[in-house]
Amino acid sequence: MGHHDQVTLFLALAVLLAAARLLGEAARRWQQPAVLGEILAGVLLGPTILGHVWPEAFHHLFQPGAPSTTALNGIAVFAVTLFMLVAGIEMELQAVLRRGGTALAVSICGTVIPFILGFVMAWFAPDLMGAHIGADRLTFALLAGTAMSITALPVIAKTLRDLHLYRSDLGMVVMSAATVGDFLGWLLFAVVLAMAGHTGHDGPGLVNGLLLAVAFVAGTLTAGRWAIHRALPWVQAYLSFPGGVLGFVGVLALAGAAFSSWIGLHAVFGAFIVGIALGDSPHLRPGTRATIDQVVSFLFVPLFFASIGLKVDFYAHFDLLLVAVVLVVACAGKIAGSYLGAKLSGSGRRESLAIGVCMNARGAMEIILALVALEAKLIDERLFVALVVMAVVTSVLPGPLLARIIPPVRTRRFTAYLSPKSFLPRLAARTAEDAITELCSAVGSAGGRDAAGVAGEVLRRERMQATGTGDGLAIPHARLDGLTAPIVALGLAPEGIDFAGPDGRAAQIVVLVLTPDDDDATQLELLADIARIFSSAQARSDTLAVKTHTELLAHFQIERHATRI
Amino acid sequence: MGHHDQVTLFLALAVLLAAARLLGEAARRWQQPAVLGEILAGVLLGPTILGHVWPEAFHHLFQPGAPSTTALNGIAVFAVTLFMLVAGIEMELQAVLRRGGTALAVSICGTVIPFILGFVMAWFAPDLMGAHIGADRLTFALLAGTAMSITALPVIAKTLRDLHLYRSDLGMVVMSAATVGDFLGWLLFAVVLAMAGHTGHDGPGLVNGLLLAVAFVAGTLTAGRWAIHRALPWVQAYLSFPGGVLGFVGVLALAGAAFSSWIGLHAVFGAFIVGIALGDSPHLRPGTRATIDQVVSFLFVPLFFASIGLKVDFYAHFDLLLVAVVLVVACAGKIAGSYLGAKLSGSGRRESLAIGVCMNARGAMEIILALVALEAKLIDERLFVALVVMAVVTSVLPGPLLARIIPPVRTRRFTAYLSPKSFLPRLAARTAEDAITELCSAVGSAGGRDAAGVAGEVLRRERMQATGTGDGLAIPHARLDGLTAPIVALGLAPEGIDFAGPDGRAAQIVVLVLTPDDDDATQLELLADIARIFSSAQARSDTLAVKTHTELLAHFQIERHATRI
Repeated sequence: MGHHDQVTLFLALAVLLAAARLLGEAARRWQQPAVLGEILAGVLLGPTILGHVWPEAFHHLFQPGAPSTTALNGIAVFAVTLFMLVAGIEMELQAVLRRGGTALAVSICGTVIPFILGFVMAWFAPDLMGAHIGADRLTFALLAGTAMSITALPVIAKTLRDLHLYRSDLGMVVMSAATVGDFLGWLLFAVVLAMAGHTGHDGPGLVNGLLLAVAFVAGTLTAGRWAIHRALPWVQAYLSFPGGVLGFVGVLALAGAAFSSWIGLHAVFGAFIVGIALGDSPHLRPGTRATIDQVVSFLFVPLFFASIGLKVDFYAHFDLLLVAVVLVVACAGKIAGSYLGAKLSGSGRRESLAIGVCMNARGAMEIILALVALEAKLIDERLFVALVVMAVVTSVLPGPLLARIIPPVRTRRFTAYLSPKSFLPRLAARTAEDAITELCSAVGSAGGRDAAGVAGEVLRRERMQATGTGDGLAIPHARLDGLTAPIVALGLAPEGIDFAGPDGRAAQIVVLVLTPDDDDATQLELLADIARIFSSAQARSDTLAVKTHTELLAHFQIERHATRI
Repeated sequence: MGHHDQVTLFLALAVLLAAARLLGEAARRWQQPAVLGEILAGVLLGPTILGHVWPEAFHHLFQPGAPSTTALNGIAVFAVTLFMLVAGIEMELQAVLRRGGTALAVSICGTVIPFILGFVMAWFAPDLMGAHIGADRLTFALLAGTAMSITALPVIAKTLRDLHLYRSDLGMVVMSAATVGDFLGWLLFAVVLAMAGHTGHDGPGLVNGLLLAVAFVAGTLTAGRWAIHRALPWVQAYLSFPGGVLGFVGVLALAGAAFSSWIGLHAVFGAFIVGIALGDSPHLRPGTRATIDQVVSFLFVPLFFASIGLKVDFYAHFDLLLVAVVLVVACAGKIAGSYLGAKLSGSGRRESLAIGVCMNARGAMEIILALVALEAKLIDERLFVALVVMAVVTSVLPGPLLARIIPPVRTRRFTAYLSPKSFLPRLAARTAEDAITELCSAVGSAGGRDAAGVAGEVLRRERMQATGTGDGLAIPHARLDGLTAPIVALGLAPEGIDFAGPDGRAAQIVVLVLTPDDDDATQLELLADIARIFSSAQARSDTLAVKTHTELLAHFQIERHATRI
């Protein structure tokens, strides 16, 4: 890599990471998984949008074939491998074995039915499915079947994690089914490539490859798992910490990736299986898991998902009819097949539908398959674009659909009802009464009353029973008729104000909570949330040092993350 | 990247990471910095050793120009950039400003004196300094001066961190001097390249580049630092945590790297300056710093330092006389110059020498300079190899030399005196007397006494005053004449044994400590160490679940890391 390439590489990485993180955050804000925004960032920066609007910038940053682009692809592939390692570590082997029947049924139905559908469509209507001139009918039909039946492990893992469903029963079923399905899909693809005379790699050949793949998975999850469990205490006792264990995990993941890639499966597959074997050992500490997870998930993974969109121009080779046919056939076969498998093994309708929608994601796997098929001249550009569009659409769909099928549980937090003007970093008041009046003035009129009227209600409640909770905290509150949403104000008084706390300590943190009259549940939720966040002495003393509303929100978010409230 | 390239990339990464981590651990075991082992791993796997012993393997893994090698280089460059970001974050701007005079004197003397020495040698004895046929005398002399005066920020940072000297006063002086020296060195090199008609990049040109470089450093450390300090609470309040802040840090580092690379400085320089600006804000939490630091230091950095050795065959182009001359001139000029600068600004002899030895490290910077000069045909292969050898030798020297000049303080830990047979995961004893006898039998004979004799001594001490310390811990101990080194035994008794602890709780963890009769300090150190490690309730209850000696050592090492004992 020359000097020019280094400049380009860093600029490309910076732009890609910034766009992926920003759109990822935007997606999250609209209750969508971050991966949706990350893939869109790539489409925006890729040939589809940036390549048309400002081709010079696109070619400067992401010129196909340039050393900087090769290095960028290397980093993206390294990133997704680390991500699949993390996803593997989070898999719970016990949960998989418990739901193994469902997973097996889903993966087999979810692979066989779309394969048959794709094969039959391509056999009887090759033109409609985008066969190019001179394509061998059987090979093309097999390829179409395989393309319809592929599953995208990384996208599913990311979507489930983004929606906090990864470690649920549903998540484990989907992940195990996707693992088996992925395995079957790539074996099928290896067969098709071998039939077409393109082995595509210098590995051990088809039959040996199949045997090695089965041996690798079985060996890693039994003997490998046992050896890792035995080796981890040794690594952590006699090598440096955490350097020893991080290096150990990294080497195993890379070796697994190299091996699975060599035998003809994708690299991510090996890292994932190694991750499962690693994650099963209690000797791998939560701290180590979290350290790897955070850097990988937030620095590397966005780069990979964004890089998907860089590979193709979705506009130039766009054939609407073909795209529509491919999309309908792919979704119908995969969703119906997986749904059927889940229903057959006793899942409910809602859960079966959720499983079907998840399994439908094709992501990077389909794009890699399409790339290999294009390079082997098994398909032309039109079908290539149709497959990629199908891959992106099916990857983006599970997020919104899943959120509809299984509405995420939202916990209400008092910070959502705090505004910049209702945070008083230094209360002037020295008595409980003055503090309540001061906080109510900051809130202003509420529920049809002016500040004085609100203060009157809160004071009446305060006189019935003082609201000092001990530990230097007080939560004066009132229910107001005419209020439509809660209002919270927070004041700090390092010198302390007497709120008659049970431990006799003066309150340094005073939180005013106003809730609608008829909403008992909200009041209870907010009071509990406040009590929880201030339960640690560290959180309370850190709060006293806060000077602005933004710093306060940052402090609470970090605190919630640290204590996993 | 095709399929074959992916297999190769992952295999190369796995082999490189494994070798680097293993040799890094070995170096650490011999009290050397890990970076020494990491560089050696690259030399072993590079053209020098593996390329000669088993050329097929070397060419398969690290074929120059292959897409997998380009991707590997990309990952290495990405890794060192992240490392310099971490090194920047750990710099303490206040400490730098406090010792700024010394740093400035060291960097100026440490740059000017080796430059003059190199220039004069090359001017008057070009053949001895390895000038190739037809070299322009002035350009070559300028280049030789620059090559002698270069400083390697990453290697110095790594060595200082490995030896726990990074945040010392010495570390801060060396790092600030190296920063300024690095800056001067790369500016010089830009001038030489421009004189030779090779600008080497498509950046802003020489004069504008110089102005931009100064503006970048000054701007980032003033306005940039202020803006980052203001932005961090916002990022942590309104974006996800820790995804928001990790992405923010990553994007800034990559953008800084791209910019400094574009203006003609090396990419690591920009990431380092951005890191300093980031690290100065107290809003960047210790948890975030540690997360980035650990993954970068133990997964990525070893890959970079190992990759240095892959670039050259140290054997084929080896010219002993030239290597010796270059090495002597480089070391003499740099050590003497930096020593002089440090002495002039009032440092002691020992500290000045340590500073000189550190500044002498050339590392990857010199190798990159040599590569650029070779590509620009300013030097030939012989001088190239001599410069690279000099870079590796001067990078490896500071570790051992520094450990001699400033002997590292070693704290004695009781775990060092525990052996597999002296750890009893389940004590059979139910009384203090039996427990002491049981632990002494496990130890066997000591200090010329048999187990019973030793137990007698410990019991006599126990009867004088019971050794239960409360919190379920007891530390029976004795001083034995004739003992040469401490002996420690540890027994677990979840049911509890009464050692008359002050809180009335029975001891579940019993640690037997035998020390030489005349060594009060050791006994005190070991007792304090034991008390400290078992001070947390979590550490005590985790200990009770331990089953083997190895698990016990792993547990204590992780515990020490978590609580930074």
